[in-house]
Amino acid sequence: MTEEIWDVIIVGAGLSGLSAAHLLKKRNDKLKILVTEAKDRVGGRTVTSEIPAANGVDRWDFGGQWVGSTQPHVLELIKELGIETYRQFTDGKKVYHMGGPDAKVRIGEGRLPALSLLGLMDLAQLYWKIEKLSATICVEDPSKSPNAFELDSMTVQTYLDQHAWTTEVKEQMAMCSRPLFGLEPSQMSFLYFLMYAATAGGLLPLLESNEGSGQELKLKGGTQQLSEGLAERIGWKNVQLGAAVTAIWQDAEYAKVMTATNTYLCRAVIVTCPLNLAAKIHYEPPLPSQRESLMMNMPMGNILKFIITFKTAFWKEKGYSGEIATGSSTNCPFTVTFDASTPYGSPALVGFIAGKQANEWSSKEVGERRDAVVSRLVKYLGPEAASFIHYEEKDWAKEPYSGGCPVNVMVPGALTYYHPSLKSPCGRIHWASTETATSWCGYMTGAIQEGQRAAREVLAKLCPNALTQEDEEAVQESQTVKQKQPSKLSFLPSIKTLVIAAVAIGAAVLLAQNPDALENAKNFVTKWFSNDQE
Amino acid sequence: MTEEIWDVIIVGAGLSGLSAAHLLKKRNDKLKILVTEAKDRVGGRTVTSEIPAANGVDRWDFGGQWVGSTQPHVLELIKELGIETYRQFTDGKKVYHMGGPDAKVRIGEGRLPALSLLGLMDLAQLYWKIEKLSATICVEDPSKSPNAFELDSMTVQTYLDQHAWTTEVKEQMAMCSRPLFGLEPSQMSFLYFLMYAATAGGLLPLLESNEGSGQELKLKGGTQQLSEGLAERIGWKNVQLGAAVTAIWQDAEYAKVMTATNTYLCRAVIVTCPLNLAAKIHYEPPLPSQRESLMMNMPMGNILKFIITFKTAFWKEKGYSGEIATGSSTNCPFTVTFDASTPYGSPALVGFIAGKQANEWSSKEVGERRDAVVSRLVKYLGPEAASFIHYEEKDWAKEPYSGGCPVNVMVPGALTYYHPSLKSPCGRIHWASTETATSWCGYMTGAIQEGQRAAREVLAKLCPNALTQEDEEAVQESQTVKQKQPSKLSFLPSIKTLVIAAVAIGAAVLLAQNPDALENAKNFVTKWFSNDQE
Repeated sequence: MTEEIWDVIIVGAGLSGLSAAHLLKKRNDKLKILVTEAKDRVGGRTVTSEIPAANGVDRWDFGGQWVGSTQPHVLELIKELGIETYRQFTDGKKVYHMGGPDAKVRIGEGRLPALSLLGLMDLAQLYWKIEKLSATICVEDPSKSPNAFELDSMTVQTYLDQHAWTTEVKEQMAMCSRPLFGLEPSQMSFLYFLMYAATAGGLLPLLESNEGSGQELKLKGGTQQLSEGLAERIGWKNVQLGAAVTAIWQDAEYAKVMTATNTYLCRAVIVTCPLNLAAKIHYEPPLPSQRESLMMNMPMGNILKFIITFKTAFWKEKGYSGEIATGSSTNCPFTVTFDASTPYGSPALVGFIAGKQANEWSSKEVGERRDAVVSRLVKYLGPEAASFIHYEEKDWAKEPYSGGCPVNVMVPGALTYYHPSLKSPCGRIHWASTETATSWCGYMTGAIQEGQRAAREVLAKLCPNALTQEDEEAVQESQTVKQKQPSKLSFLPSIKTLVIAAVAIGAAVLLAQNPDALENAKNFVTKWFSNDQE
Repeated sequence: MTEEIWDVIIVGAGLSGLSAAHLLKKRNDKLKILVTEAKDRVGGRTVTSEIPAANGVDRWDFGGQWVGSTQPHVLELIKELGIETYRQFTDGKKVYHMGGPDAKVRIGEGRLPALSLLGLMDLAQLYWKIEKLSATICVEDPSKSPNAFELDSMTVQTYLDQHAWTTEVKEQMAMCSRPLFGLEPSQMSFLYFLMYAATAGGLLPLLESNEGSGQELKLKGGTQQLSEGLAERIGWKNVQLGAAVTAIWQDAEYAKVMTATNTYLCRAVIVTCPLNLAAKIHYEPPLPSQRESLMMNMPMGNILKFIITFKTAFWKEKGYSGEIATGSSTNCPFTVTFDASTPYGSPALVGFIAGKQANEWSSKEVGERRDAVVSRLVKYLGPEAASFIHYEEKDWAKEPYSGGCPVNVMVPGALTYYHPSLKSPCGRIHWASTETATSWCGYMTGAIQEGQRAAREVLAKLCPNALTQEDEEAVQESQTVKQKQPSKLSFLPSIKTLVIAAVAIGAAVLLAQNPDALENAKNFVTKWFSNDQE
């Protein structure tokens, strides 16, 4: 009996898997490569669907949707595939509702959230501290960062409890955490959070929608085109859909990748599914215990994403951007919304039911959730919201072969004890997903970076001559651990922080009697804050 | 086609699964029950093996080994099966090595570890605070305990950093955490830790070997007899070994439990494997996202357990108990050892390579680990240790269908957000394992408690008339959430604590110049401490 022998089996036809296949094929067209995918589609955590809209139908992203101008890996792919991008619409008033169901709904403009003056000052000092700490993180190996053990022993919530002055800023940070991770600040390591920000170039790029941030640009026609374009380039015949891998066996000669109906013999495997799914595969021999532990210590977040379409973008007409941010104590199902009107003229809003809110709302019927969403849009944007065309949502936790979204995060201790096993190959098995990225970890661009990195690892084993000069530089770059200097801040408040504190407290007391001065003071803080971020 | 229809399929032939089957059969012998087990043996996290010993061969437990007189569920089973118990040997000197490879090896006697006087005082105040907090925990629903959100937002390490005065006590607590959980204090929720202690009646019962503690008694012939005895009672023909469940489907009529070779139709399923394994099963329809999230947020610890046999119990002859405790910074592979001599006259020691130490040592060859263990036993107990008969170990992380030991712990936030899904049935699927126990969570007795609880749930659905008065009382008891009063301590130091602090600091300064008084002072602390625990 002669069995077919593949050079590389790639598990998962998301951006990592398909990018790996694409680079392997580019470097050596003779390699026999098969991509196996459990779902009946490519794209993994990106999926673009058509729903009823003002012009009949239009397409929206129900998974990853944004890219940014500081994301070279995805930009290169976008260029190669000839896809056009357009800016996220952010002009106009923003709605903030924090502090309980009866709290006042605040309206903000510009980059800063609509907090009290003290809240803004608190946010400024907290962002500043986090940015400084994040700049000390060694993204290639966060356990080598200054104070790594202390930072990894605490949750983000513990850091907030120690360093935020106000309840409103703690609530603001929890609100930010939900759509970013699908989790609460109490659920992840603070070192992991700093590392995550460091791979994006800082905290603000994670949170904002302006140039250089993570929410800057969208793709005309949607992000699933990226995976579809890659699948076309490597050949659809090399992509096996509906083929969930159940087991991977290895011996001295080959690896055997098993699905319910097939067994593939191969020389190398690249596993590109998220870690919660990689943990479900049965491995023989068992993986090193450090790797097993890692996979048990990286839960996936919980997000439901919805698109709601309208006849007109009535919010724009009223001077709103479409951005709404709510605290979990307001009983609002969604955490945030943004304008999602397409370049083809279909007005829409996109919203995220995330973290604690997803946990509370995911067990209800879709109709109940939809009605609650619409009633909140009416409250925040006006009665026009009631006349929507279509509401469509995706619960990523219930999507077969996903089990959540957007990213596997690390719980306290995981970076300290298990980080080396994140990328270390286990025999013939190589690992790649956005979770292993050093540039925008958790984003589409990170998935592409890592698919290419794993492809280079495999090329170096199977056909090192196929590696180009550029590849070798990339390998060297990824293996260099850049030692960072400890922040002078460390855990002690700096003089600057103390000055802000004093100013804030004084100002709050004064302004309580003189609200007219509030606007000037806010402008001062905004300017001061902006300068500090340069 | 008529397919065989089972009343109950039980996934896992450990103590939970077999106890469930046993109670179901006892209450209604007509029920068609099948227990499926992935391993080729019963017992789950208990396994008893024969190895070379002084008298030829003898049997030792390589998994769960201790029971205690405050564990009614396991004691009842022991009585029913007619198994004899005997006391853990603890008389004599105990070895402590903490604070780095070159630190002095200290010798202790009695209940208290060999710490400095300041260390002992610190331990006393810390234990006291933790015991007081633990007494406020509502074990049926820890999220309803006072300050639950704060306690669940922090790791055990964060609490230690805030409340332990000395490095040696922090090191002592990390040492205790390793064999208890297979994890470090930075890796688990502090609320979870308090809940765990509360289910055992307090912190000291977890740590000690005296009457009422978790390390009090052993079983003649080993603990796997419990599962074997249960399997005999329910009939070995009703236990299917080597049958790993891969998927569970449910529809309006039945549940379908699938293994690689069979599909079983049934009316109810009890899943009793640890949560990291339950997470690997494919469920259709998908489980509620809260349950999926729970399973991703309960990592299993990492423990290697070894037995080393000798011709004579030379340590006893020299006045040692066989207990050695080391800090992870001493480069010693094992965390703790105890005397493991059998009642059949085979001298042995049992040791645990756990948590951080397991992580560091598990990737080495067994010979290297054995040599390092022996060389440390020589250092701590004398040159006789070099002439051992046999060294045998079990790496639970590498055991197929275990993936670690001893227990799935909860990371921060898991109790707050996902606890209700720990026991809530999902359609026809019921959940039971030691992780769900309210009496000695993580112990064998807890596994039995929960197997019986799940059996009662299933009886209430399938044949409620079979439930006895005793069953109905047990159901009611398990559903009653006992509200606890907040500890007066809360997070503020009490007067008592401040007094200890003052005394400790004063005493340390004085005693530095007058070491003769040390013994008296230690006796004072020991007495004070003992009184406080009553």
